[in-house]
Amino acid sequence: MKLLETLNWRYAVKKYNTETVSTDKVDKITAAINLTATSTGIQPFRIVVVSDKELQKKLGEGSFNSQIAEASHLLVFAAFDNVTQERIGSFIKNTAKVREIPEEALEEYKNLLETYLLNRTEEENFSWASKQAYIGLGTALIAAAELEVDTTPMEGFDNAKFDELLNLKQKGLKSVVILSLGYRDAENDVFSKMKKARMPIDEFVIS
Amino acid sequence: MKLLETLNWRYAVKKYNTETVSTDKVDKITAAINLTATSTGIQPFRIVVVSDKELQKKLGEGSFNSQIAEASHLLVFAAFDNVTQERIGSFIKNTAKVREIPEEALEEYKNLLETYLLNRTEEENFSWASKQAYIGLGTALIAAAELEVDTTPMEGFDNAKFDELLNLKQKGLKSVVILSLGYRDAENDVFSKMKKARMPIDEFVIS
Repeated sequence: MKLLETLNWRYAVKKYNTETVSTDKVDKITAAINLTATSTGIQPFRIVVVSDKELQKKLGEGSFNSQIAEASHLLVFAAFDNVTQERIGSFIKNTAKVREIPEEALEEYKNLLETYLLNRTEEENFSWASKQAYIGLGTALIAAAELEVDTTPMEGFDNAKFDELLNLKQKGLKSVVILSLGYRDAENDVFSKMKKARMPIDEFVIS
Repeated sequence: MKLLETLNWRYAVKKYNTETVSTDKVDKITAAINLTATSTGIQPFRIVVVSDKELQKKLGEGSFNSQIAEASHLLVFAAFDNVTQERIGSFIKNTAKVREIPEEALEEYKNLLETYLLNRTEEENFSWASKQAYIGLGTALIAAAELEVDTTPMEGFDNAKFDELLNLKQKGLKSVVILSLGYRDAENDVFSKMKKARMPIDEFVIS
């Protein structure tokens, strides 16, 4: 299967060269993320694409991840800080539009979602939304690798600073994980030569 | 890009036919999950493969997801209930073995992981481990679809019952999300004909 090759090709790049990832490729990666399955289908996260070098520098200040400043692009996965009635309504509206059906046809589903999601705490909904974003991260890693674009998934960043500099609070979002895009500087990246270390499959899988 | 086609092909199957997914295909799917990136590389989750119909029936009792009982296979994503010194040690040992280097060469990384992970609460580590499992779910959805195996990702199941029937507690694991595998019964699955509803890309992506 081609996917296994693709997954073996990728690794978490530490050092990028200065080559820029084309807009066409970035668009394909975000299109793939947008097609990712999420619980209930509500897609409770958004992707912020950053390629402004000044902004990247600010975002990366003080981080041990030099990739934040140095990569061609940063994809910031930002999850809904909560799930509101308005967001459920907007999701139902969009679904009805895409499927060319009246919104009323989705009334039952809307009620189910409201009962399920609005009775949870803000913290529970944010945690749940974050997990959905991680499914999208799984897609993004594969999409980029298929296009031979290198990546680094990162949790070690200053969430508060990201939220502030990207105006996420005003959008009801909070940064949860980031993925840098670019091209490996294989010569100067010690990690590029390391063998991928994974669990033996018979320990990873339990029957 | 082939991946976009693959992602468009898949949907959350409600009704499966009785065809069994081959062991070869299940093995490829779990191999792909095992190659998924995780934070720090520790892979803080395991996959339980269930295909015993009696067990599936028990697991699915009382659930609105008939797929639990009816699918060919169930993949249960089970996250570490906590991160312990032993688990970090085992990860370091395996990494050294795969890379054919002495464990001492990873001493600094081991110390870093211990400082980072052992100072968090059990709850924080479980939540973090769960998120890593969701990256693997993203991979699994794509791996299955590439093999034209249908799937249903599900959160709506009885976690406590799964943990008990699969003896997860003894293994230091807790079920977080499941993915059924099988083949769609297109004739009898009303969802098979529905247009995939996703956010307009210019609303999903924020520049």
